[in-house]
Amino acid sequence: MSTFSYQQLFTFAERVFLALGCSEADATLATETLLSADLRGVDSHGVARLSGYVRLWEAGRINARPRVGITHETPSTAVVDGDGGLGLVVGPKAMRIAMQKAAQVGTGWVSVKNSNHFGIAGYHAMLGLAQDMIGIAMTNASPLVAPTYSLDRLLGTNPIAVAVPAGEQPDFVLDMATTTAANGKLEIAQRKNLPIPEGWAQDAAGNPSTDANAVKNGGALQPLGGATGSHKGYGLGAVVDIFSAVLSGANYGPWVPPFVAFLQPPTDPVGQGLGHFFGAMRVDAFRPADEFKQHMDKWITTFREAKAVEGKQVLIPGDPERQMAAHRLIEGIPLLDAVVQDLEKTGAKFSVKL
Amino acid sequence: MSTFSYQQLFTFAERVFLALGCSEADATLATETLLSADLRGVDSHGVARLSGYVRLWEAGRINARPRVGITHETPSTAVVDGDGGLGLVVGPKAMRIAMQKAAQVGTGWVSVKNSNHFGIAGYHAMLGLAQDMIGIAMTNASPLVAPTYSLDRLLGTNPIAVAVPAGEQPDFVLDMATTTAANGKLEIAQRKNLPIPEGWAQDAAGNPSTDANAVKNGGALQPLGGATGSHKGYGLGAVVDIFSAVLSGANYGPWVPPFVAFLQPPTDPVGQGLGHFFGAMRVDAFRPADEFKQHMDKWITTFREAKAVEGKQVLIPGDPERQMAAHRLIEGIPLLDAVVQDLEKTGAKFSVKL
Repeated sequence: MSTFSYQQLFTFAERVFLALGCSEADATLATETLLSADLRGVDSHGVARLSGYVRLWEAGRINARPRVGITHETPSTAVVDGDGGLGLVVGPKAMRIAMQKAAQVGTGWVSVKNSNHFGIAGYHAMLGLAQDMIGIAMTNASPLVAPTYSLDRLLGTNPIAVAVPAGEQPDFVLDMATTTAANGKLEIAQRKNLPIPEGWAQDAAGNPSTDANAVKNGGALQPLGGATGSHKGYGLGAVVDIFSAVLSGANYGPWVPPFVAFLQPPTDPVGQGLGHFFGAMRVDAFRPADEFKQHMDKWITTFREAKAVEGKQVLIPGDPERQMAAHRLIEGIPLLDAVVQDLEKTGAKFSVKL
Repeated sequence: MSTFSYQQLFTFAERVFLALGCSEADATLATETLLSADLRGVDSHGVARLSGYVRLWEAGRINARPRVGITHETPSTAVVDGDGGLGLVVGPKAMRIAMQKAAQVGTGWVSVKNSNHFGIAGYHAMLGLAQDMIGIAMTNASPLVAPTYSLDRLLGTNPIAVAVPAGEQPDFVLDMATTTAANGKLEIAQRKNLPIPEGWAQDAAGNPSTDANAVKNGGALQPLGGATGSHKGYGLGAVVDIFSAVLSGANYGPWVPPFVAFLQPPTDPVGQGLGHFFGAMRVDAFRPADEFKQHMDKWITTFREAKAVEGKQVLIPGDPERQMAAHRLIEGIPLLDAVVQDLEKTGAKFSVKL
């Protein structure tokens, strides 16, 4: 384990994106999006994935110079074509379109096709906060999840993020996969040779499994609710898939292209690339922003000060990630040795040093 | 157990609502909303609750002649004041406002204050389907749910419904509480003297409990994900509360007025009544409706035909409720004897016979 400053990782990743052919503005934007995951402690979605994006680019599956544009719109909606670009770039651009529409008619809703993985959903949802907007972000993802009763993997971990501005209190930021656990947690258990809790995964025959290798060996991740009924998580993941891809014309369900370059995308696509969905709601489209934020402060303090189980505190969604970001901005971002080596190898392809 | 035709229960409930002083149009609307639950098999939210609404009216907590109106709006948003009316009436009226806005600018979003319980969320979300709109409905509810680590009950079962139009396939209708199990399921286990599965509830000390009386005895319902991590269900329930009440100016969290008349509402309200949130998105605000519906058909058939666990089939959200409604429209709606007696007693107050 070594620790790197945010600035050091930023410079490195930005230079790699530039080497792929990204414009300066896009390289900066992609880096900011990617590293927001490392800052917030979502290590699975941060710089550790840089080599994955590079391999997709090498496989000709990422366009470093996308012309991101609107293909259809109304005053409050748009479909955006990501032109095969990095989701890290397409995502924020589409969210900004949602925010422009919100500025004009109260809310904006953008469904995106022809994109790639966009990092953490929370980053995009949070873009509206500075303008007193509630932000919403979702994306579909490579199929690893079996709907209730299914043996087939038909959904991704399909996250939902909702960011709500507060006043004196820190903002409310929910960012959650619609599965019980992210695949990254299984990988950690694999490395440590530990069993996983029931409700996370099923084996190839559809039985609940506590084997960390279950998904690898033909099983699947279970939707949120796993052990006590996964139909709700399945329903939520389905809504994310429909909003992100059936509305936009991206691939959905089992047709979502895999993130890893060594797996080929399906040869019979039902749309273009993968899909995202973004929403922005001006809070003053409902009530004066000051009034709203005062009540959010009251909501937040009420929940935070609730009587808690011995030794615990009731948290507000976003609390742990915000504290982690504050810490890592100062103390640096720790990376596993395997990740460091992978970054060095990736940088070497373009003569970029970590 | 006796069985009643839909028409018989409709006439009965409508006459009771008329006796409360509802206008003819409102009595019909309230009845249709209420009975949609019985038809769809959500027995806890249907005619069995009629006496509860009547008791709230007797306690002066429901206005039978509400002037439901917009207090604030933009082209794509509105805040609606329910004027203390039945949620069964306020809900559909607010959803229609969302749909009118969607007709004009692509989407419409309405947050409602000063309302009461609105029956099943799915009914409201489904109103947009006939106009090729995606419908969304949420509501907050009496606090019975403890956030993760909390001993206090701060949230209701806060349901989310999303209805998506399909083409030749039946529509997709997700309607789910953000708890692992509805309180009604605990009541059934109480009557049968059965334990409940882990993940449904916690006892007064915050420990996971399999006692069906746990909530009654000072415990709480657990958010969705219960046994394997309730923070996601807590986050979703929180979003429902914020969209329904902090946006509109209704009561939120522990201030949501209880549905039962024998419990007084908090004496220090933070808003008016309880809150709902409705959304309508025209699918052709994103892509041509025919194209969208063809892809929804493909989505639905792909999931329905997935390889399934022995003896099971992958269901589409809304399948069981639609089949139940088709059955009950013809075969009638079965009611427990206790419910029938309760209805007869309620009717007798107004000389209305079942």
